[in-house]
Amino acid sequence: MKKKTVPPQSGITAPLGFTACGVEAGIKRKNRKDMALLASELPASVAGVFTTNRVQAAPVLLCKRHLAGGIARAILVNSGNANACTGRKGAADALEMARMTADLLRVDIDSVFVCSTGTIGVPMPMQTVRRGARLAVASLSRQGGPDAAAAIMTTDTRPKQAVRRLKIDGRVVTVAGMAKGSGMISPKMATMLAFLTTDAKVAPKQLQECLSSSVRLSFNSITVDGDQSTNDTVLFMANGASGGKALGPRHPAWKFFCAAVNDVCMELAMMIVRDGEGATKFVSVTVKGAASEAAAEKVARAVACSPLVKTSWCGADPNWGRVICAVGYSGAEFEPGRIDIALNGKPMVKRGQSAGVPEQVLRKIMSAAGFTLEINLHGGRSAFTIHTCDLSDEYIKINASYMT
Amino acid sequence: MKKKTVPPQSGITAPLGFTACGVEAGIKRKNRKDMALLASELPASVAGVFTTNRVQAAPVLLCKRHLAGGIARAILVNSGNANACTGRKGAADALEMARMTADLLRVDIDSVFVCSTGTIGVPMPMQTVRRGARLAVASLSRQGGPDAAAAIMTTDTRPKQAVRRLKIDGRVVTVAGMAKGSGMISPKMATMLAFLTTDAKVAPKQLQECLSSSVRLSFNSITVDGDQSTNDTVLFMANGASGGKALGPRHPAWKFFCAAVNDVCMELAMMIVRDGEGATKFVSVTVKGAASEAAAEKVARAVACSPLVKTSWCGADPNWGRVICAVGYSGAEFEPGRIDIALNGKPMVKRGQSAGVPEQVLRKIMSAAGFTLEINLHGGRSAFTIHTCDLSDEYIKINASYMT
Repeated sequence: MKKKTVPPQSGITAPLGFTACGVEAGIKRKNRKDMALLASELPASVAGVFTTNRVQAAPVLLCKRHLAGGIARAILVNSGNANACTGRKGAADALEMARMTADLLRVDIDSVFVCSTGTIGVPMPMQTVRRGARLAVASLSRQGGPDAAAAIMTTDTRPKQAVRRLKIDGRVVTVAGMAKGSGMISPKMATMLAFLTTDAKVAPKQLQECLSSSVRLSFNSITVDGDQSTNDTVLFMANGASGGKALGPRHPAWKFFCAAVNDVCMELAMMIVRDGEGATKFVSVTVKGAASEAAAEKVARAVACSPLVKTSWCGADPNWGRVICAVGYSGAEFEPGRIDIALNGKPMVKRGQSAGVPEQVLRKIMSAAGFTLEINLHGGRSAFTIHTCDLSDEYIKINASYMT
Repeated sequence: MKKKTVPPQSGITAPLGFTACGVEAGIKRKNRKDMALLASELPASVAGVFTTNRVQAAPVLLCKRHLAGGIARAILVNSGNANACTGRKGAADALEMARMTADLLRVDIDSVFVCSTGTIGVPMPMQTVRRGARLAVASLSRQGGPDAAAAIMTTDTRPKQAVRRLKIDGRVVTVAGMAKGSGMISPKMATMLAFLTTDAKVAPKQLQECLSSSVRLSFNSITVDGDQSTNDTVLFMANGASGGKALGPRHPAWKFFCAAVNDVCMELAMMIVRDGEGATKFVSVTVKGAASEAAAEKVARAVACSPLVKTSWCGADPNWGRVICAVGYSGAEFEPGRIDIALNGKPMVKRGQSAGVPEQVLRKIMSAAGFTLEINLHGGRSAFTIHTCDLSDEYIKINASYMT
């Protein structure tokens, strides 16, 4: 049972029995791929995790319904238009996208999933979408992973793919994933789409457990700007094409399979943070010594979402007062006089006061492309880590005119 | 009983019996006033409202203790150093600042209040502070209001003063105020100092009620960046120097007096938002039709604090999808299909979908220096308004290097 990292070029189609493509449907401006299709040659078990925003886009609602069947054959994804806040027409459009794909692929409509990302509140250009869907079905190939990863991008500056391989019972099993997202990334996975495939055989219920726990540790532990979207979706298909027995909690290799899934999710999540809109630095904030995991998470999120903290990271400014200030308003209970804060393991704050390390030492650490911030509340045994990035003027430039 | 707006030049010393000054103590770099002193010639009733951050600066803790006595004679304020997260030395330094001022003015130490704003975690340069305090006491004058308002500034680009006059029982009564704050301004009044004076006679308990309700509607209803500070303080002194009977809820003019206090607080709060770090636009967000005021406030804060919403304001981009998205993750209960959103009264969203007003019309409204956003959830009778500004790249520039 060995685990191996393979070049990400192989992408989402690395596992056996999957095809994909990325095409120019014309929803975005010219010369940009804006539609991806991912298909399984065999009926696949499917698991999904969705946004917790009360406003949910039409395709999210459709995916939730289709998930009940437990089987997926295809996922049609478009970028450029979120199909959110589009009322009955939006719901009808999402359904038509599923039906059309199902007809063209000759599979059951309930096994087709639809995801959209882009501007909110604009009706889907259905004529363009229909042409795109036909083109996509005709373009499916076993080498289509990288094209699909490119087609789901919005403000992403690069495609995001990850692959892991394991040997289970003498057979090679592959887990692969692709993701998009660089703004509106937040607590509970905001404007983010991620798709995972595996040729392992796993029942829908077990696949869901494996995915849910991986999402919690990966996509739900990152934040770029604290905003949550209407369209977040993670879907995972397992088609069993590698052969072999079904995997599940009783199989001795189950934990290794889950670890591989977790690895793929984590790698994609880290790529999203590193590609955060305008991000110049990658920062992991760990809160330890909290009374509960919920308290640790509260503190970590307050720090990771504070504009003042994030801008000080951008300027490599060791202004730990802003960190302690965010801890103070997080809502968590703690004793201010007991807090320790360390930067890459170097003490910055001891018992709520400066640890006396010269500013230039701290500044040098913060000038790197990334660092860790560890906050110990010394008030319990619980911990939480969140991965985030700084806030730069580039973020403003990107977001002040996204619609145009 | 007439109310009159007077030129703000008169500032905090406009009411009878108050003196003030702003001096260069040398805590900040040269040629910047960094210490203010405000004194009442008569013992004054005092009321105060403080930060709710769990981490509270030494001077805040001192003010809270002294507030118990109900009497104030002087307030010493320094900018440049927050005296927060400075441990026992910080507490001793704040106490020494009070004691020294009390000795020089020959008043009781419990009637002296101390406020600090600036960098967190750096010990007070006490030698400089002592020299400054002596200079301040020697510089007190009845024309010192504007100098005091200048001396309490940090990243503020202009001083903030407001004055109201009323006639009560045939006598002129004046209410005046000054404030500082332009970043870390948030829910529950973050890094913000405000001082109010009046020559009306009011008992401490009534003064506190009047101040608390005014703060709720003004300083606690603004946000610049969602951050809360360790040092926020609002202090209000009433010295009775105008003569006349004590004011209180039974006096027929009480409501007019309270309205004047509210006006002063509101005017100062609006000045803070308009001077928000890097702000280019002033935006009032009103949420109506909520099930409770708490729900309305939750939604208003989510919208006013969303970096994606705030950057779209900066770019005059009518991307209401970001607004509805923030409403969705606010945590409040509502029906997505019932939301209306209006921009300066112009419908933008009707029943959760685009109202069809051309983008260029909305864009034109958003190109102005300010506008209102009204969100109707159609799910109840409660409302809440929050005043805020946009998020520009100037904010990043200011905050990426504040410490240096």
